[in-house]
Amino acid sequence: MRSVRVGYTARPLDMNQQIILVERPEGWVRPDHFKLVESPVPEAQEGEILVRNHWLSLDPYMRSRISAAKSYAQGVEPGQLMVGGTVGEVIESHSDRFKPGDMVLAATGWQLFAAVSAKQALKIEDDDVPPSAYLGVIGMPGITAWTGLMTICEPKAGETVVVDAASGAVGSVVGQLAKSVGCRVVGIAGGSAKCDFVVNELGFDACIDHKRSDFEKQLSAALPNGVDCLFENVGGAIFETLLPRMNVFSRIALCGMVSEFNRPPHAHHTLRSILINRIKLQGFIVSDHMETWPAIRQELRERVARGQIKFRESITQGLANAPSAFVGMLKGENFGKQLVRLID
Amino acid sequence: MRSVRVGYTARPLDMNQQIILVERPEGWVRPDHFKLVESPVPEAQEGEILVRNHWLSLDPYMRSRISAAKSYAQGVEPGQLMVGGTVGEVIESHSDRFKPGDMVLAATGWQLFAAVSAKQALKIEDDDVPPSAYLGVIGMPGITAWTGLMTICEPKAGETVVVDAASGAVGSVVGQLAKSVGCRVVGIAGGSAKCDFVVNELGFDACIDHKRSDFEKQLSAALPNGVDCLFENVGGAIFETLLPRMNVFSRIALCGMVSEFNRPPHAHHTLRSILINRIKLQGFIVSDHMETWPAIRQELRERVARGQIKFRESITQGLANAPSAFVGMLKGENFGKQLVRLID
Repeated sequence: MRSVRVGYTARPLDMNQQIILVERPEGWVRPDHFKLVESPVPEAQEGEILVRNHWLSLDPYMRSRISAAKSYAQGVEPGQLMVGGTVGEVIESHSDRFKPGDMVLAATGWQLFAAVSAKQALKIEDDDVPPSAYLGVIGMPGITAWTGLMTICEPKAGETVVVDAASGAVGSVVGQLAKSVGCRVVGIAGGSAKCDFVVNELGFDACIDHKRSDFEKQLSAALPNGVDCLFENVGGAIFETLLPRMNVFSRIALCGMVSEFNRPPHAHHTLRSILINRIKLQGFIVSDHMETWPAIRQELRERVARGQIKFRESITQGLANAPSAFVGMLKGENFGKQLVRLID
Repeated sequence: MRSVRVGYTARPLDMNQQIILVERPEGWVRPDHFKLVESPVPEAQEGEILVRNHWLSLDPYMRSRISAAKSYAQGVEPGQLMVGGTVGEVIESHSDRFKPGDMVLAATGWQLFAAVSAKQALKIEDDDVPPSAYLGVIGMPGITAWTGLMTICEPKAGETVVVDAASGAVGSVVGQLAKSVGCRVVGIAGGSAKCDFVVNELGFDACIDHKRSDFEKQLSAALPNGVDCLFENVGGAIFETLLPRMNVFSRIALCGMVSEFNRPPHAHHTLRSILINRIKLQGFIVSDHMETWPAIRQELRERVARGQIKFRESITQGLANAPSAFVGMLKGENFGKQLVRLID
């Protein structure tokens, strides 16, 4: 067994730790659907780098990967390592593209150490933004926001844009991008703290708390001119309520239906609006167009560096707490991009 | 009171007849929601023509116009003339664009005579196709088929295209156009006679009778490679069943939801397919893009003249029978384009 010594701790780390799936959940996910296992730190082969992960990203799409239902990606089977994006430090390199100490973005899963092909890792050379941002605002969630908003919604100045899960990793970027286009932006979020943040920190024009009993009334008041663009993360009853508020020739980017992960599918009664209002409703998955990512990431990075896009992180300490953090995120208990810090 | 004498009858026609709406129906439309009234034959003013209508078109969109619910067009109020497309003969002209005896297409409504601006009438000069075709295969329904299929579905050779209400004025053109692109075309229709026609006369690859108890099993058998393009006329349970059968990156042109006209909205449980399969679902109304009509009509006319597109008409005799023919059409009792013949 090898010992791996890393710079910021005097203690050698002998073992890798991983979170594996125990069983595919039906309904709500529980922490005991996962378990932490130990295994030797992997050895990096020629062309690979050994990475010690600092940050693990938790994202709603992971719920689909462990679902028994058909999804858009290969699922995680019981006994397998949970998938996920990570940012970490190269501690051993067998590639001339990286040297120990480099920070890298890679999809190495819920674990402390990973041997990964250098081709599958992106070097983080940025001083302007923290490495964790590569899992959020300038990572997959931010690129998701840009893609759905700019390529499906195509907002124009003066239009009204609505985004739900507005304080989250995706929604917060959607709204700030839409503001930069010159749109009226209305967020939907769960709770007054999130709504206050969305309006006061992120600069949305309004944010409606979907937990309020007068949600629909508040929503109507915030949408005097209807909705031209909807970036839909939540689905379910919120989506059903929004559909009749869409304007003629409006566009909907269907990014997620997190409200429907853990319960039977919602019964939607308002589809007629799609016909009457000639709505374009399009589902998308950001990983379908990886070739677009570098340019989008660069644009987002510059906006973040200039302070034009703000972001908030919800940080859980320690790999062992990843399952409960994941469950909490699915319940909306996070506030901003959900991360797990894997170093002390 | 003027008497209007027309060429094909020795009898002077003193009075116009019109069908007006009595009340806006809730649920199923009945013939007694309409009534026939008489009024003087209108006088054509300068720039107008007086038309004696030969054909009245009955179309599903008319149900929306008399609905109490919000629609995409101005509604018909109780006491008002029912709207509709007509083909007729010019019997008096105050415009140098037309002369008596010309056949014209115009939207003059459910009536025998109309004075209409010459600018609102299209001269029918065609010998290759009968005038009634300007209300069907080369009229609004045919142009609707072309528009939804070509601009939203964008079918490619080898793809599978599904259209419901397949034997109808729109569906029959959708399927024949899709065949000309090189697609596998599967129709859905009500009853074996319609399905036989769709396959044997129109050349669809298959047609499934939605009235059969084994509809879903038959549908699966006819769709071994899923669905790439759906031209949706019906909505409701058929649409719900089709959504999970859509392929990745498939397209849906939402043209109508006739199954939902006369009952409370269907509860749709399968919207998740839109996300998982990155479906584009787009509602459209053919009258949004009138500027495209002449070129599309010309293409359809040439195809019809060459025998590449076949069509079938369901003809009811006499204006007084228009309401019952309309009710029958909403119930699917027509077989092909529903017309009312207004001359003896």
